Amino acid sequence: MLGNTFGRVFRVTTCGESYGGALATICDGVAPGLELCDADIQVELDKRRPGQSEIDSPRQETDRVTIFSGLRNGFTTGAPVGMIVHNVDTMPQHVKEYEDVKDLIRPGHAEYTYRCKYGDYADWCGAGRASGRETVGRVAAGAVAKKILAREGITIVAYVKELMDIVADVSGMSAEEREANSLKNEIFCPDLATAEKMIEFTRQIKADGDTVGGVVEIFATGVPPGLGEPVFDKISGTLAHGLMSIPAVKGVEIGAGFRSSLMRGSECNDIPYMKDGQVRFRTNNSGGIDGGITNGEDLLIRIAVKPTSTISIAQSTVNMATLEDAELAAITRRDATICGRMCAVAAAMTRITVLDHLMMWRGYDAVSGIEHKLGW
Amino acid sequence: MLGNTFGRVFRVTTCGESYGGALATICDGVAPGLELCDADIQVELDKRRPGQSEIDSPRQETDRVTIFSGLRNGFTTGAPVGMIVHNVDTMPQHVKEYEDVKDLIRPGHAEYTYRCKYGDYADWCGAGRASGRETVGRVAAGAVAKKILAREGITIVAYVKELMDIVADVSGMSAEEREANSLKNEIFCPDLATAEKMIEFTRQIKADGDTVGGVVEIFATGVPPGLGEPVFDKISGTLAHGLMSIPAVKGVEIGAGFRSSLMRGSECNDIPYMKDGQVRFRTNNSGGIDGGITNGEDLLIRIAVKPTSTISIAQSTVNMATLEDAELAAITRRDATICGRMCAVAAAMTRITVLDHLMMWRGYDAVSGIEHKLGW
Amino acid sequence: MLGNTFGRVFRVTTCGESYGGALATICDGVAPGLELCDADIQVELDKRRPGQSEIDSPRQETDRVTIFSGLRNGFTTGAPVGMIVHNVDTMPQHVKEYEDVKDLIRPGHAEYTYRCKYGDYADWCGAGRASGRETVGRVAAGAVAKKILAREGITIVAYVKELMDIVADVSGMSAEEREANSLKNEIFCPDLATAEKMIEFTRQIKADGDTVGGVVEIFATGVPPGLGEPVFDKISGTLAHGLMSIPAVKGVEIGAGFRSSLMRGSECNDIPYMKDGQVRFRTNNSGGIDGGITNGEDLLIRIAVKPTSTISIAQSTVNMATLEDAELAAITRRDATICGRMCAVAAAMTRITVLDHLMMWRGYDAVSGIEHKLGW
Amino acid sequence: MLGNTFGRVFRVTTCGESYGGALATICDGVAPGLELCDADIQVELDKRRPGQSEIDSPRQETDRVTIFSGLRNGFTTGAPVGMIVHNVDTMPQHVKEYEDVKDLIRPGHAEYTYRCKYGDYADWCGAGRASGRETVGRVAAGAVAKKILAREGITIVAYVKELMDIVADVSGMSAEEREANSLKNEIFCPDLATAEKMIEFTRQIKADGDTVGGVVEIFATGVPPGLGEPVFDKISGTLAHGLMSIPAVKGVEIGAGFRSSLMRGSECNDIPYMKDGQVRFRTNNSGGIDGGITNGEDLLIRIAVKPTSTISIAQSTVNMATLEDAELAAITRRDATICGRMCAVAAAMTRITVLDHLMMWRGYDAVSGIEHKLGW
Repeated sequence: MLGNTFGRVFRVTTCGESYGGALATICDGVAPGLELCDADIQVELDKRRPGQSEIDSPRQETDRVTIFSGLRNGFTTGAPVGMIVHNVDTMPQHVKEYEDVKDLIRPGHAEYTYRCKYGDYADWCGAGRASGRETVGRVAAGAVAKKILAREGITIVAYVKELMDIVADVSGMSAEEREANSLKNEIFCPDLATAEKMIEFTRQIKADGDTVGGVVEIFATGVPPGLGEPVFDKISGTLAHGLMSIPAVKGVEIGAGFRSSLMRGSECNDIPYMKDGQVRFRTNNSGGIDGGITNGEDLLIRIAVKPTSTISIAQSTVNMATLEDAELAAITRRDATICGRMCAVAAAMTRITVLDHLMMWRGYDAVSGIEHKLGW
Repeated sequence: MLGNTFGRVFRVTTCGESYGGALATICDGVAPGLELCDADIQVELDKRRPGQSEIDSPRQETDRVTIFSGLRNGFTTGAPVGMIVHNVDTMPQHVKEYEDVKDLIRPGHAEYTYRCKYGDYADWCGAGRASGRETVGRVAAGAVAKKILAREGITIVAYVKELMDIVADVSGMSAEEREANSLKNEIFCPDLATAEKMIEFTRQIKADGDTVGGVVEIFATGVPPGLGEPVFDKISGTLAHGLMSIPAVKGVEIGAGFRSSLMRGSECNDIPYMKDGQVRFRTNNSGGIDGGITNGEDLLIRIAVKPTSTISIAQSTVNMATLEDAELAAITRRDATICGRMCAVAAAMTRITVLDHLMMWRGYDAVSGIEHKLGW
Repeated sequence: MLGNTFGRVFRVTTCGESYGGALATICDGVAPGLELCDADIQVELDKRRPGQSEIDSPRQETDRVTIFSGLRNGFTTGAPVGMIVHNVDTMPQHVKEYEDVKDLIRPGHAEYTYRCKYGDYADWCGAGRASGRETVGRVAAGAVAKKILAREGITIVAYVKELMDIVADVSGMSAEEREANSLKNEIFCPDLATAEKMIEFTRQIKADGDTVGGVVEIFATGVPPGLGEPVFDKISGTLAHGLMSIPAVKGVEIGAGFRSSLMRGSECNDIPYMKDGQVRFRTNNSGGIDGGITNGEDLLIRIAVKPTSTISIAQSTVNMATLEDAELAAITRRDATICGRMCAVAAAMTRITVLDHLMMWRGYDAVSGIEHKLGW
Repeated sequence: MLGNTFGRVFRVTTCGESYGGALATICDGVAPGLELCDADIQVELDKRRPGQSEIDSPRQETDRVTIFSGLRNGFTTGAPVGMIVHNVDTMPQHVKEYEDVKDLIRPGHAEYTYRCKYGDYADWCGAGRASGRETVGRVAAGAVAKKILAREGITIVAYVKELMDIVADVSGMSAEEREANSLKNEIFCPDLATAEKMIEFTRQIKADGDTVGGVVEIFATGVPPGLGEPVFDKISGTLAHGLMSIPAVKGVEIGAGFRSSLMRGSECNDIPYMKDGQVRFRTNNSGGIDGGITNGEDLLIRIAVKPTSTISIAQSTVNMATLEDAELAAITRRDATICGRMCAVAAAMTRITVLDHLMMWRGYDAVSGIEHKLGW
C-alpha cells in the first residue's frame, strides 16, 4: 500500500489492521502550544467504538488511546503527535473463525480485491487493513484537528441524516445542537423522534439478518472564506477524496449536490446580498463552496453509506483457492448499520481536511502582504 | 494557489486562465516509446471546444495545441511532455465587458471567493483561473494518458446520462458504442433518441434565458483488478478528488452510489461466481471497486453537474467594491449547458487517475515477487 | 521521469530539453499582488545565458522569456505563473552532428544512463533533458522567488569561490557586494583580482582542449530563524536536495562542511552571545543552520562543480548500439567551465527552497498562536 | 513540524523524541510476501544503540522493537508496517538535569532554533525531537528496505572512513567485507589496524573532555543502472536530501565529490569500455551516478559528520529566558564521537532512498513496454 498518508501540511499517517497488535497514528504539522491529553482523543474514539449498543458489532474493543510522542508537560511541542490503540478483542477463537473462511469472498467485502493485489499474503483476518477498524486512526487524528479548529472558531459535526428512506429534520438546529442531540441516541441522529424510528427500523432489519445504509451529513460553521486551492486541490476535491476513502462510502455531494442537476441556473444560483456589512447568500445550494473555495456560509456535505456487507443470511460466493462456486454461511458478529459509528469518522476526515487547507492558505497569504477587504 | 498539480507518479501540472496568453500542461511520468503527435491531443480538445453548436458558449477558440517538449522523432523520450494552447478570442472589447462588471459577483460563480482569497489582485477577466477554460489543460493530459491506457486494453468513456430529468438508456452498449454515439450529437449522449429530447429541451431553456445541469456518467472497461492504494488513496478517493475538482461538479458517486443508501445489505452485495475460470459478480452495485480497489468489473461513476451559473436573466447581487446590493444584467455569452462539453474533461480526469494508480501498483508489485493467481 | 516538480508549497514544475521546441516553467504558490514582468525574469536568465564570453559554450541562445499566465495588469493574481523560453539555436546541422554520434557515450555525460533507463527512445540530441539547458526553467522560477524574498528582506547570492585550486577571498563583503562584483566579470567571482587569474587559467585550460571545475558558494542574509522542518525536511536536507540536483554538482556542504570533520567539538561549536538584544554566534561553522533550522546567521553553502564533461580531446568510449569499444573525437562546441553560469542556477534553487520553507513555516505558525520571544 | 515523512512510494513516517514515551515508524509501500520479524529490525537497531562502549553515550537504552502491524503469520501483507521502540532510560533525575539547564543554549545544538520556531513549547528534554534518538525510526525503516533490496541483489553498507585526519584504507574490500569488518570494532571501521588508532585517538579526545567528527562512507553494490528521476529527483538529489537530514551531517559528496572540483575534465571523466558484454567504466569518479541516474557501478557517497556538540568542557552561552550571557558547565553524559553509531543511520537512509527509486522506476517502466538492451 502506498496510500496511508493524508494531507499536505497537517499530515496524517496511520497503520494497523483489524486483528494486528495495534493501530497507530502519526500526526505531523501539529502546532506547538496546544494543550492535549489522552482524554481529548478518547472522547472522539468513544463515539465510533463498537459494542456499545445492540445495533453495533458485538466486538468488544476498549479502544484506549495513549499519546506517546509530541507532548511535554501536557502541551504539544511542534513534534509529531504519535498515538496508539492496542487491539484487545483478538482472541484465538475469532482468528480461527476467520481462518476457516479465509478463501471465501464475503460479498460486498474486499477479500477478492486484496487477494488480487496482494496475493496469498493478503491479511485474511477480520478484513485486515480493509476493516473499518483502521478508522480508529482517522478519528484520533481528527480529534487533534478538532482542538486546533476550535481555537479558530470552526465547528464541524456529522450525524445521520437518512437511514434508508427515513429522513431526519435538522432545520434550524445549530451545529452544537446537532452534535449534542446526536450523542443522545445510538444512531447519532439529531432529530430525536426520527432517531427512534431509525433505531426501531434497524432492529427489525437486524432481526431479518439483514443490514441497512443511509446518508451521513457533515455540517460546518465558522469556516472562513478563502479555503481551497485551485485547480486540483479545491476544498471540494480534497474533501471528496478524504470522505470517499472511508470504508462503505459510495457517494459524496456538496450543497445541493445531485439535486442541483435537476435545477435551472436561475434556481440553483445562490443570490448574494449585504447583511450587517457582510456578504451573505440567500440560499446555500453551493454548500458553502464556490469555485472550490469556501464562501463563508456553512459547509454542507452528504455522504452515501452502503449497508454493512456482513449479513446473517447465507450467500452464494466463490472460493478463491479452489476457484469454485461456494456458499457462505450467515455471520453473526456484525453491525446492523454503521451509519451511526461512521459519524465520528466523517467529522474527523472533514476536520483534518479543513485544517490542512487553513494552514496552506495561511502560509500562502502570509507572504502576499495583500489587504483583505472582504470576508475576514 | 498551491493546487495545480495532480497525481503521484503520472503527474499533471497546468496553468493558464480564461483571458491570459495561453494554457499549458506539463505531463510528468510519461513512459518513453509512445508515439504521440499534436493530433492525438487535438482530437480530445476538440470534444470540449466551445462555439461548436448553438447550445454552447459562442466564444470562438480554436484550441490549437502544440507539444513543445518530451518528443524526439514523434516518440516520447521519457522527458515530461509540455503542451500549450494559446487563447485567441480575447479581444479588448470582451476584456472591457468584464472590467465593467468586475466588482459584481456573478451568482454561482467564484468572484467572491477569489476576491476573499486573493484580494483585489484576483483575476476578474472571464473568471480567470476559475473559468472552465482551465480544463483545456486537463483534457490535454488526459489525451496522453488515453494513449498509454489503450496499450493496456483500458477504455474509459464519459457521456451525458441525464439532463435535468431526461434520462438516457445506455444499457447493453459497449464502451466504444457509448463513445461513438455520443460523438454523433452536440449533447454527448449515446442514446440518440433521448439526445434529441435533451437538445430540444436545452434550446427551450436557452430561449428562457436560463441554463440546465445534469449527470455525466463515466464508464471504464478493461481495468485490471488491483488498482487503488488503501487507506486514503483508494481509487475511489482519488477519483472523487479528481472529478470533484472539475468546475461545476457538485457530487460524485460510484456504482449504486446514493442509491445504495436505500438498499438492504442482502440486495446491495454483489454476489461473486465463477465464469470461464474468472471470478465475476452478478451485479455491479460496487461500480467495479471493492474496498477502494478495482475488482475487474467495469468502473461506473456518476458526477452531478450543476446548471451553468451564467444566465441571460437579470439577477440581484452585491458590488464587492462598494459593499452594496446591486443588479447584474443578463449575460448573453454563455453555455446553455456544459454537460456535453464536460464529458471530455471527466474522461480525462478518470484516465489520469487510473493511469497513476496503474503505475503505482506496477512499481509496488514489481518488487514483491509474489505470484498472482487471481485476476491477472 | 517522475521528478520534474520541486517544493511543497512554493512548487516549481519544469519541462523542456536541449533541442526541443521550448523550455517552460509553471510556478505554483505565487502569492497575489506581486508586481512582475518579463524583464524581472530576463535579468536572471541573462546571467546563465551561454555564448556571452569566450569561456562559455558558443551556442547562441537569446533565452527570451514570456510570462503567459498568472498576471493581470502586471501583478500576480495568485494563479500559477507560466513562463516559456523558445529554443532558437537548434539548426539542422547541429541536430545532424548529434545524430551522427548518438550511439557513442560521451564520457562524463548521461547518455548511457538515459539509454539504460529509457531505451532507444532516450533523447540523443544535445543531451536532451539531461542537458544543462533545463536549468533555464529553474532560473525562471528562482527569479519569481527572488522578488518575493526581497519583500521579506532576504538576499541570496551565489558566486564562484574556487576555480580548481584558485581561491577567492570574499571576507568582509556584503551579499550585495558579492553579487555586484561577480557581475563584473565572466567567471562570476566577487574577488576581482582573483577573477582575472581564474579567467586566464580557464583560457589556458581551454587552449589545451580541456575543462575545469570549481566551487560555487551560496550566501544568504536576512533569513529569519525558524526555517526548516524536522526531521526529514530540515532546510539543510531540502537545500542539499535542490542543489545536488543541478547538473554537474557532486557535493554540497553547509558552513564548515567537510572541514568540520577535522575539528574538535570545542572548536566546531559556535558560541552564542548577546549582542544588541539579539542572540548571535561568535563563529558560523553551522552555516546558519542548527538542527536543520535556520538560526538567524548568514546561510553559507558550498557546492562542488565538476569540470565540464565535453572536452576538445579525443576519448575512448563505447558504442551503445554495437556494444563495441570506440573513439569519440574532440568536440568543440562546449563550455571551458560552467562554474560561472552555474551561479545563477545555484542562487535560484536556494531561493526556491528558502521561500518554500518560509511559506510552510508561516502556515504552521499562523495556527499555533504562540508568542515568539526569540529571533523575530 | 511538517517534515516527518520521507519517500514517494516506499514512504517512511516517524515520530518520537529523546524523552518521550516511545519512538515509532510507519513504513508504507512494503510489498507483500516478505518474511519479517522483530529480530530483522533489532539487528540493525543494535548497531546504533548507545551504551555499548566507552566511546558512546552512557545512556542505557535497550531499544527493543516490536512490529505491531503489517504482518500476518510472519509475512508482510502489503499493509503498512508499524514499529515501536519504548524509551526506557528516562528516569526523573535525568529529566530534572535537563530542566535545570533548559534555558541555556548548548553550543552546537538546536535549542535556540527550536525555541525560535516553537517558542516556549519546544521540548527542552534531551533535545526532544532534535535528539539523535529520532534516528531509531530511520534505522527501523531501513531494516525493512534492506530485506527487500537483498532480494534484488543490492547491498548497501556504511562505515567510518575517516576520523578526524585518520583515514582508513578499504581498497579492494567487498561490501560484505566492509560491513563484516566494521562490526568487529566499536568505531565501525573496516580497516582494523586503523580502527585501533581511531579508538585510541577517541579515548584521548574523550579524556580531554572533547569530541571528534569524521567521514562516514556509504558503499553500494548491485544497484542496477537506471535509478533516479530527472530533473529534481535525481538519485543524487534525493540521497543528498536523506543523508543531509541526519543529525550532525554537514556535507554530502558523491564519487570524487569536492575532489572533482580540482580535476580537469580529461581526468574526471570516467572512460567506458566493454567488459564481458557489459558497459563498465575504468574509473568511478561519478560514484556510480551520471546525470542523476545510476550507471551500474558501485555507489560511493561520503558524508561529513561534525564532532558531537555536547562536550565535558565548560562553554560560554546565552540564557534564552533572561537573554543574558551565561556559562554552561561540562556535561558528562555524551558520545565522544557519533561517527560509529551513525553508520547504521546512513546505511538506512541510503537503503530507503534506493528502494524508493527502484519502485518508482519499476512502475514507470512497466507501462512503457520498451525493450532494454543495455544494463539489465
